[in-house]
Amino acid sequence: MGVVVSIDERKPPQASVQPLVDLTASDMRRVNQLILSKTGSEVEMIPEVAQHLIDSGGKRLRPMLTLSAAQMCGYEGEHHITLAASVEFMHTATLLHDDVVDESDMRRGKQAARMVWGNQASVLVGDFLLGQAFRMMVDAGSMEALDVLSTASTVIAEGEVLQLSAAQSMETTEDDYLTVIRSKTAALFSAAAEVGPILAGSNKPTRDAFRSYGINLGLAFQLVDDALDYGGSKASLGKNVGDDFYEGKITLPVLLAYRRGSEDERAYWREAMESNSSDAKALEKAMELLQKHNAIADTVERARHYGQIARDALAPLPASDHKQALLDVVEFCISRVN
Amino acid sequence: MGVVVSIDERKPPQASVQPLVDLTASDMRRVNQLILSKTGSEVEMIPEVAQHLIDSGGKRLRPMLTLSAAQMCGYEGEHHITLAASVEFMHTATLLHDDVVDESDMRRGKQAARMVWGNQASVLVGDFLLGQAFRMMVDAGSMEALDVLSTASTVIAEGEVLQLSAAQSMETTEDDYLTVIRSKTAALFSAAAEVGPILAGSNKPTRDAFRSYGINLGLAFQLVDDALDYGGSKASLGKNVGDDFYEGKITLPVLLAYRRGSEDERAYWREAMESNSSDAKALEKAMELLQKHNAIADTVERARHYGQIARDALAPLPASDHKQALLDVVEFCISRVN
Repeated sequence: MGVVVSIDERKPPQASVQPLVDLTASDMRRVNQLILSKTGSEVEMIPEVAQHLIDSGGKRLRPMLTLSAAQMCGYEGEHHITLAASVEFMHTATLLHDDVVDESDMRRGKQAARMVWGNQASVLVGDFLLGQAFRMMVDAGSMEALDVLSTASTVIAEGEVLQLSAAQSMETTEDDYLTVIRSKTAALFSAAAEVGPILAGSNKPTRDAFRSYGINLGLAFQLVDDALDYGGSKASLGKNVGDDFYEGKITLPVLLAYRRGSEDERAYWREAMESNSSDAKALEKAMELLQKHNAIADTVERARHYGQIARDALAPLPASDHKQALLDVVEFCISRVN
Repeated sequence: MGVVVSIDERKPPQASVQPLVDLTASDMRRVNQLILSKTGSEVEMIPEVAQHLIDSGGKRLRPMLTLSAAQMCGYEGEHHITLAASVEFMHTATLLHDDVVDESDMRRGKQAARMVWGNQASVLVGDFLLGQAFRMMVDAGSMEALDVLSTASTVIAEGEVLQLSAAQSMETTEDDYLTVIRSKTAALFSAAAEVGPILAGSNKPTRDAFRSYGINLGLAFQLVDDALDYGGSKASLGKNVGDDFYEGKITLPVLLAYRRGSEDERAYWREAMESNSSDAKALEKAMELLQKHNAIADTVERARHYGQIARDALAPLPASDHKQALLDVVEFCISRVN
């Protein structure tokens, strides 16, 4: 695949999240306990809804980033557990609100919470989890970490609003698209990684390295996610193939096929993405055009580009098992598509 | 009205918010500037939606509480401005999400934001404002204030979920109802007041006094609000008479009339509050029953009770213009109903 291996890496990166999972396993058990205890409420519906999402088994990539980054920087306290749980709560709150905004039926292969408990509960339980996330940040006691995470929460919301408004036209540029995913996805990856060295009291170049690693990993992750929407199976994806298409959500594969297409093809895309009545046949045609213009493979190529930046961001840092695991995760995020 | 005047008050309380407005006027100008600058975003829809709410002219009671409490405690820094803006943002975010949850058409006499920009924008701009609120708290730099305000944000969401679930039955007790309004309304009044003495570094009894003042003022405020829903005019209320009734929102006036009513009347209430088809005629009948059982007047009596606790909470503190203004506000909140 032509991956450039930095000289201080011990072995070529493997496309696996397993090393990261193994290295953070004992910390993650504590994170999961904390998550459970912080969804507790006398108001029954709150643990029910929260549990539904938590059980649906995301990979918990974001909290693992926090744990690994903190350990790699030599942090020896307890607050990385708290901040990792806080990051996962921010993510879960975003998912709950996203499902309402996108009117999604499924989430990670299960019915979306809003289909079971209604939009109202999804909005409010999301608010509750966000509040708990901030309380945990306060518990962790680092004003710098609070700054980074609260800024991320604003940027995420900003990205979602942008996606709702300006970015919902076929004339969206690739740059506009990147602005959206940088905000709505990469900002949290970045914050999750950066709070590790913050807790450890690392110097600025180290903080910068983790921030850059996180933002570029996040971009690669979202690009591949958007490619998978036109290529993965329901089982591996946890959502339906073509969800973005049916929702009229304009992502890079579509933008590439649109830009590279004929006048007729462009007219087709405008009709398909702007009407609310796209069916399986319309999706089939879309897949054909994506294939014709190599749009999915090239979206993954773009992801590879950001993945490489993520890897190089960590290059100056000393070799370690954690570093190797974080490099493997980049490769894992990109190769999910195969 | 039989108000007990504490001996250290300079004059009997007047039912007016004006003294508080006057005392905080120059600070409030700075709060308003900060609010304006913090709704700024390159994503156009954000300042538009935020501005819609901010222009719709709430009284900004909550930020005034923060300013006045800080000044009364001798605080001489700048962070009370930041925290006051933060409190107003938390409140505005809650309003945006509430309108989505309640499916409201109007807010403070204007079209609700969700009617203009849609539910999606209301959810996401609410999230943005909440994020900005936390960033401002970080700017203010007080971990204790962050603790109090982030806890309030969790408690508010918890109260809203409770209102959505358990509390939506005619068998709701007055205690359940109080638990809901304590969370969804009084918690923010309380936090708004308490961060004043926190900034000033006041001692625990002073903090406790402001917290108690805030929570009881908030309870009185919400009780009167719920009474007004069956008694005020559209102009003075900024929403329609009977909104709660049409939405099937079970508040104290209804609970009192239900408990005091005959079997037939109780059957009527169950039907009216649980069906989604209540019309003007049903509201007329409801008003009749509320009148018959003195339910509105007694709801205001309950408010008076909490108002008195709020006043007594401040009693140990030395007399000052600010103290007098805060006492007047209690009377103002209660007498809105006349």
